[in-house]
Amino acid sequence: MTTTVRSYAAVASDSPLAPYKLTRRTPRQDDVTIEILYCGVCHSDLHTARNDWGWTQYPIVPGHEIIGRVLSVGAGVTRFKPGDHVGVGCMVDSCGECPACTQGHEQHCPESTYTYGGADRYDKQPTQGGYSEKIVVSQKFVLRIPDGLDLAGAAPLLCAGITTWSPLKNANVGPGSKVAVVGLGGLGHMAIKLAKALGAEVTLFTRSQGKEDDARRLGADHVVLSTVAEQMTAAAGRFDLIVDTVPYAHDVNPYIPTLSFKGSLVLVGYLGPLEPALDSVPLILGSKAVAGSLIGGIPATQEMLDFCGAHGITSDIEIIKMAEINDAYERMLKSDVKYRFVIDMASLKAE
Amino acid sequence: MTTTVRSYAAVASDSPLAPYKLTRRTPRQDDVTIEILYCGVCHSDLHTARNDWGWTQYPIVPGHEIIGRVLSVGAGVTRFKPGDHVGVGCMVDSCGECPACTQGHEQHCPESTYTYGGADRYDKQPTQGGYSEKIVVSQKFVLRIPDGLDLAGAAPLLCAGITTWSPLKNANVGPGSKVAVVGLGGLGHMAIKLAKALGAEVTLFTRSQGKEDDARRLGADHVVLSTVAEQMTAAAGRFDLIVDTVPYAHDVNPYIPTLSFKGSLVLVGYLGPLEPALDSVPLILGSKAVAGSLIGGIPATQEMLDFCGAHGITSDIEIIKMAEINDAYERMLKSDVKYRFVIDMASLKAE
Repeated sequence: MTTTVRSYAAVASDSPLAPYKLTRRTPRQDDVTIEILYCGVCHSDLHTARNDWGWTQYPIVPGHEIIGRVLSVGAGVTRFKPGDHVGVGCMVDSCGECPACTQGHEQHCPESTYTYGGADRYDKQPTQGGYSEKIVVSQKFVLRIPDGLDLAGAAPLLCAGITTWSPLKNANVGPGSKVAVVGLGGLGHMAIKLAKALGAEVTLFTRSQGKEDDARRLGADHVVLSTVAEQMTAAAGRFDLIVDTVPYAHDVNPYIPTLSFKGSLVLVGYLGPLEPALDSVPLILGSKAVAGSLIGGIPATQEMLDFCGAHGITSDIEIIKMAEINDAYERMLKSDVKYRFVIDMASLKAE
Repeated sequence: MTTTVRSYAAVASDSPLAPYKLTRRTPRQDDVTIEILYCGVCHSDLHTARNDWGWTQYPIVPGHEIIGRVLSVGAGVTRFKPGDHVGVGCMVDSCGECPACTQGHEQHCPESTYTYGGADRYDKQPTQGGYSEKIVVSQKFVLRIPDGLDLAGAAPLLCAGITTWSPLKNANVGPGSKVAVVGLGGLGHMAIKLAKALGAEVTLFTRSQGKEDDARRLGADHVVLSTVAEQMTAAAGRFDLIVDTVPYAHDVNPYIPTLSFKGSLVLVGYLGPLEPALDSVPLILGSKAVAGSLIGGIPATQEMLDFCGAHGITSDIEIIKMAEINDAYERMLKSDVKYRFVIDMASLKAE
């Protein structure tokens, strides 16, 4: 039996999100039916709602930082039971058989199914996200939320958390590591918290002096103003890893000299051409790399959540009602949020 | 006692290399005095002789692919004795104490001394390279040449060999790995040989159909014509590692889709801006990297030489006389060499 649930959807690129009656599929044997309690608001939600990337099919229900409570489980579900607190991130399915899947990097499966804007592998129906009352997801893509973690603050871990966790873990960041973070937003503030908890010495690169106090409160040991040449020169050769969270076009060349030999700058926020042109000279002379990183696989996501549970790490959030989503999008475009909006889904039921 | 030896030097950017009386330092306690038998001819020699990089101090004696025989050793030398076959590569000294040195990545020591065009750490005299009869080098920077390896063919291993070995080893290339090489020259032909001997499946990317037979003879399993769109599309997602040996400006974007997820394209040949602009989209969506790599440290160089000894790997070379060096430079500019010139230093004594 399909279920009709309340949600918020965009029906066109130029229309605000509005209430929408959404049909969820009949649960399958391995499905978990989840009552959504909170949903974080990611920049991807806004880009998709407004068709900024050109691939949106309407209507679209965004949301892939989902925290909920298990309502029921299919006969084949072994890992969850009603009442469990669970999360769903950017993916809800994948082929399960390709090298990416078998290595636990499901985000790189050619057939991975995004939580919204994808198509279900079996019924081919469009997938719809977390701005809704309920969601039905295969247990393979459901995450356990550690006890004691604030549920609203945990929502952004499902995208912002895993996105910044992956480059830190790939670089084996730990005590003795020197990590820099470029940009202090939804991704950047998580990168600081996670790198610090992993034991690294953490530096924030920022263009705005006003972010220093907040950066230190979040865990940064140092703040470097990227607009001040002397500060950039003083940071030469310092970092094993730079996590660049800036979501718009920017020159990455000035950061390369601040990497130590064999260091990497990992882009997680900006999709587009690297202009001005990236110079290969310091890359070669220092055996350095510029890389990209896409969210993370399901095993890494669970590892990150368990780490956050053990260290009491959640996102700094501002809770909003579902009906406030369009105002929230406008504020996000002005970076007017510290550091992530999270929708309280009780507000949708109360409408 | 300093020694005066015959050599070939450039005395200005626009003058051909010509015979030059070179003074070698009085050997120190840890110095090895080497009779040079062969010296490979690297593009860096030409660039330095002609001041293409703007840092040349004249006169300059190029040459950093040096194979020789030990003539004498200082009182503190424990690792070599007269008669040993030895090699000297791109470096002749470093601080020995910094993180790069203690980790065996001496090429990244801020004080590493290049074999030519550097300055000795103690007497501050300019270092001069292998286009000469003899060289005096600290034992720390002298390499053992395995018995049985053709001495002339081994010379290019000291630069072209280690330059392509480093990215292969950093990527843990071995059986099951899929490696592509861009460009078939001095570096490219070594990359193919080394990757194949490490057990990888090897593909050459080339713009010229005429290189296919040679590539297969050198060990390539496949050849992809980068000018043929269908061949590039068919290679999508295939490679764990691409070693890009092309020494001039070129668009690296078309190669990125041929990397598998988490794959890297490593530049070893081209120093300059990456134009057209590198697109971050496939880097992020595939968690891929574009990196640079600079030669390799002394431990890695010895490891590579020992590997080549065990597998009978040398460079494909054309032996020239010292007096033919200027003609050789002109032919290198036309890529008219398969695949490395090596100077027979007996020709210098015979002049």
